[in-house]
Amino acid sequence: MSVTAPLGFRAAGIAAGIKSGDARDLALVVNDGPSRAAAGVFTSNRVKAAPVLWSQQVLAGGRVRAVVLNSGGANACTGPLGFQDTHATAEKVAEALQESAGEIAVCSTGLIGERLPMDALLDGVDVATSQISRDGGLAAADAIRTTDTVSKISFRRGEGGYMVGGMAKGAGMLAPGLATMLCVITTDADVPAEHLDTALREATRVTFDRLDADGCMSTNDTVLLLASGASGVTPDLAEFGQVVRAVCADLARQLLVDAEGATKAIAIEVIGAASEEDAVVVGRAVSRSNLLKCAIYGEDPNWGRVLSAVGTTDAVFEADRLNVAINGVWICRGGAAGDDRSKVDLRPRDVTITVDLSAGPHTATIHTTDLTAAYVHENSAYSS
Amino acid sequence: MSVTAPLGFRAAGIAAGIKSGDARDLALVVNDGPSRAAAGVFTSNRVKAAPVLWSQQVLAGGRVRAVVLNSGGANACTGPLGFQDTHATAEKVAEALQESAGEIAVCSTGLIGERLPMDALLDGVDVATSQISRDGGLAAADAIRTTDTVSKISFRRGEGGYMVGGMAKGAGMLAPGLATMLCVITTDADVPAEHLDTALREATRVTFDRLDADGCMSTNDTVLLLASGASGVTPDLAEFGQVVRAVCADLARQLLVDAEGATKAIAIEVIGAASEEDAVVVGRAVSRSNLLKCAIYGEDPNWGRVLSAVGTTDAVFEADRLNVAINGVWICRGGAAGDDRSKVDLRPRDVTITVDLSAGPHTATIHTTDLTAAYVHENSAYSS
Repeated sequence: MSVTAPLGFRAAGIAAGIKSGDARDLALVVNDGPSRAAAGVFTSNRVKAAPVLWSQQVLAGGRVRAVVLNSGGANACTGPLGFQDTHATAEKVAEALQESAGEIAVCSTGLIGERLPMDALLDGVDVATSQISRDGGLAAADAIRTTDTVSKISFRRGEGGYMVGGMAKGAGMLAPGLATMLCVITTDADVPAEHLDTALREATRVTFDRLDADGCMSTNDTVLLLASGASGVTPDLAEFGQVVRAVCADLARQLLVDAEGATKAIAIEVIGAASEEDAVVVGRAVSRSNLLKCAIYGEDPNWGRVLSAVGTTDAVFEADRLNVAINGVWICRGGAAGDDRSKVDLRPRDVTITVDLSAGPHTATIHTTDLTAAYVHENSAYSS
Repeated sequence: MSVTAPLGFRAAGIAAGIKSGDARDLALVVNDGPSRAAAGVFTSNRVKAAPVLWSQQVLAGGRVRAVVLNSGGANACTGPLGFQDTHATAEKVAEALQESAGEIAVCSTGLIGERLPMDALLDGVDVATSQISRDGGLAAADAIRTTDTVSKISFRRGEGGYMVGGMAKGAGMLAPGLATMLCVITTDADVPAEHLDTALREATRVTFDRLDADGCMSTNDTVLLLASGASGVTPDLAEFGQVVRAVCADLARQLLVDAEGATKAIAIEVIGAASEEDAVVVGRAVSRSNLLKCAIYGEDPNWGRVLSAVGTTDAVFEADRLNVAINGVWICRGGAAGDDRSKVDLRPRDVTITVDLSAGPHTATIHTTDLTAAYVHENSAYSS
């Protein structure tokens, strides 16, 4: 179902020949309205791909008629010609739909630094526009995969009967070239752009933004939320926000599960923080410790590597009041060895590392993966 | 030669039984004066090992009679009892030398979170004090190794005939448990503590501080500079600073070369920066990109991963004015593809990545290594 679960949306996913082989590589999502309200969040990397620069302009208007997405090339670091390619792609979709290119968002994912094969891509737009349908959501979700082993889709029904659906790509924020995350969420609720923006920012802040598999930030990350209003339901905004958040959380979980090269899904749960920001900073520092991630891969409850990561932050804590549990066993108490480390069972895929800062009531959880030889293999062989 | 190359120093390195097996694991460096001036720099990690907390107090007095160093255990995250162990070690050395413990610095390296075997260690101090000699520098350098495959030693003669010598441990800041770096530098020049401090901080700032193999910060890093004054030479301070810097640079290079698990030594040379700080920030961001480090391991000149790392910083630059060369080939010009990437030869062990920010005259170079399956293997198996 994915992006076509809500009323008012059609989609398609086709093989345009952007990738080598016969795999789908072009997706189109069309909003038939009556509303075209939309919001987006984008990578904070200052080196932004051409489609990000383009789509930020489109979203500034708060209206999106269609989103065209390709895998097989990121169109990042491609200069003015790359931007022209994105513009031409939007124009081609606009022409087919008899619309303005100013309401056509563009997303790309794949290798950085190479131009897209525009002949194949523009021909593909023709094919995709001829194939868009109410049941094209799954094909669209398939077409945006790079090294993702499965499509990521989700949908939830809200109060009054409206629907929120979504699709995402990104192999756990981890494996492929810079791990671009693309996500399109649709709803048939009637929500103006301003409130879509609020709901989307709040949802991504506590879902996608708390995945941190390798600390690398993509040039292409894009999350879009489109509302058709076709259900006729005007939802309570708080409730709507919860539904959007649930879809984002579900998609984020799917990204983590599909992390190629990873053998563990690690939740860094920070408690006892003086502020939520402190909790996030600490969780992120721990999640970025290569040494810790190697230890978890080796099923070694090496809590010293947790403390040394905590110590690099400026969060409020005293070193001799830090407590650390791994899978529920408090192996570090008061900054020193606690319960017997042999009690920690690290064989399950899911691992929870709890860091108690003993400094306040706030909490946050960052999700990451282990660091494995397979990660090194995949990322040393990707573009060659 | 190492720390005993300068006049006025004796040293020993013995096997105390702290490590399993017969390897040396305890080193002692004694300054026989006439001066005891000393300076130190320590890890900025807020979780500091007991010997770091102790030695910071000692160095605050600006005088060091002796340094006792052990491998086989970091004595970090060991609580008040761990601090008592460090204190007892210093007292034991002081007693043997008939001195005050307040002038005995202590350094430890090894696994975090476990108490040291104090009986073995204190007995070892007796053995070491009975063996200190003018030619004990090499044995001392050997005794502080953990996974280092070779001892790291260096010495330089300064103008007027004074000597600066040093020993260091740390397998490239990369392989072993948190990659503690310990370094003791000695000189027979007559330099007061205040000027030793200046020389040491300036030297480490542009040498050890610019190694960044895996972004992980140790709880135990310590660099000490001890002056005996035994040569009778009072050097020009600028010239002395250059000699100290040369010794630090030589030791830093040796650390990088010995990076276990690494197949490449990568210099990230940032040019065209608006400030030296910008250059360091950018170099560090690039050096911490796991994706780039995997690409270099795979001999893939993936400049897109360089740009995406640059883009995460707040340095002054425009994305469309960034240039990147790998081993001298400018494969990225103006933020887009430049010369033919097939011209880049990544087979040599030494790799230079030049990042031109096109924003000013400042430069800095950060040294790192590639990310390999061997790194993962070593760090997943270390404590178990």
